[in-house]
Amino acid sequence: MRTWPHPERVRITEVGPRDGLQNESRPIPAEAKVRFIDALGAAGCREIEVSSFVSPKWVPQLADASEVFARIERRPGCSYSALVPNREGLDRALAAKVDKIAVFTSASETFSKRNTNASISESLERLRAVVDAARASTLPVRGYVSCVVRCPYEGPIAGAAVRRVVEALQSMGVDEIDLGDTIGVAVPDDIDRLFDALDGALAPADAVLHLHDTRRTALACAYRGLQLGVVGFDASAGGLGGCPFAPGARGNLPTEELCYMLSGCAIESGIDAAAVGDAVASVRRLLGAAASS
Amino acid sequence: MRTWPHPERVRITEVGPRDGLQNESRPIPAEAKVRFIDALGAAGCREIEVSSFVSPKWVPQLADASEVFARIERRPGCSYSALVPNREGLDRALAAKVDKIAVFTSASETFSKRNTNASISESLERLRAVVDAARASTLPVRGYVSCVVRCPYEGPIAGAAVRRVVEALQSMGVDEIDLGDTIGVAVPDDIDRLFDALDGALAPADAVLHLHDTRRTALACAYRGLQLGVVGFDASAGGLGGCPFAPGARGNLPTEELCYMLSGCAIESGIDAAAVGDAVASVRRLLGAAASS
Repeated sequence: MRTWPHPERVRITEVGPRDGLQNESRPIPAEAKVRFIDALGAAGCREIEVSSFVSPKWVPQLADASEVFARIERRPGCSYSALVPNREGLDRALAAKVDKIAVFTSASETFSKRNTNASISESLERLRAVVDAARASTLPVRGYVSCVVRCPYEGPIAGAAVRRVVEALQSMGVDEIDLGDTIGVAVPDDIDRLFDALDGALAPADAVLHLHDTRRTALACAYRGLQLGVVGFDASAGGLGGCPFAPGARGNLPTEELCYMLSGCAIESGIDAAAVGDAVASVRRLLGAAASS
Repeated sequence: MRTWPHPERVRITEVGPRDGLQNESRPIPAEAKVRFIDALGAAGCREIEVSSFVSPKWVPQLADASEVFARIERRPGCSYSALVPNREGLDRALAAKVDKIAVFTSASETFSKRNTNASISESLERLRAVVDAARASTLPVRGYVSCVVRCPYEGPIAGAAVRRVVEALQSMGVDEIDLGDTIGVAVPDDIDRLFDALDGALAPADAVLHLHDTRRTALACAYRGLQLGVVGFDASAGGLGGCPFAPGARGNLPTEELCYMLSGCAIESGIDAAAVGDAVASVRRLLGAAASS
């Protein structure tokens, strides 16, 4: 009764080391991050968002981005990426020899102002300089759009607002666009509405879905995404994460849950869910109870 | 982009008081159960599985079934049901004036033997006497089939085995059939495979899905069920539950999660998810840490 076309495989970007750990209040030694990232690489993750070259003043937990990049094992075939907010961050990312950068803006004015202290159009202007320079260095660029379903300050976000930001990122020539339900409140119908609003601008097959799991609906939304043609997903080992600028947001869609579902649906992810579980167990021992809540 | 026909409303049977609490090792006073059930009724639950008239030797936690039935508020329009394993249990259920009974068997030989100390065909014979007597008393009967996807002892269960048991229950004239992923391992494609195997015997619209959430896939499976036409679901407030005879099984699909998803998809459940949350909070305070794990 296969009533929808299953993809043979999907592409999962493991965002646990960045989106997962950035929210930890206690300091985590670079050595522990390096071991976590190496374990994720060994588990078969082929895209790992390692860290963020934002100002250490904003996200002190990731101030060691350069050190972590210098010490991780660079497995062949695996792409190690980082968030970059501005030219200064790009210079640090280039020096760290990242394989790909991610720039970020929001579909919500208020969230943009709170998260980056800039309106959406100001943030897009800031990004443009980063994207231009990255392209000049032939560095692939992911463009994150946050709050594509709902904003913690504004409430529901109109599809048209998402579309405007997506088209602006496309006009800059970013290589992929990542749509984030930053606060983890989407239900499957929201995924329909999202791609409906993006019809003709961004097809599901060309988008990456970044789901948080605050209401425990992330896996059902990922499933709906698959049905609509999405083949790119972000996930976080152990569901680590949250967003320091999004009150109440919980962790990302857990990588193991996504891989388990995919495996039972005969869709390849290349990731060994049990090995991801082991990597998570070791980082949880380190983080203690806070990360297992 | 409504690519599948949403039902206007679904029917949720709240199984927390029975499936949720039967697994608690500490004694729970009848008074607390009564308050929990009354709170669930007030939250809009229209079908509540209150308890089980199994032998107290098997499930000591539910030995107070008669007392609980005697003390709960019988809200008009709400059906208060109970599990019944045999004629003795039926007599107790009739005396307690239950609105509906549920009998249970399994699609797995080994699970049936371990759970009821009888082969599937022996258990069906035992049920037949109960169902006949219930029908003579014009009492509606639900027939549970456990392990419809996988058995903790046997592994994957063939669709043909599920179908045989479903047809046997139908031949007895049960009013509804409830398909249980007892150990909570199903992925959405399993729901496809299940109804594929039942094609011509039991349509999705006539089945109830009883999902456990061990691998956190229950909501995605419920969503797939909805797409295939299922409009009857079991859920447990707070995801309470497990099965004492199914090693490793975790709680049921949480009622609040299901209601949240349904609400965002404009499907009525009649249940106030926030009020269910309050009912859960009060029972969790009572159960302490064990129930919140």
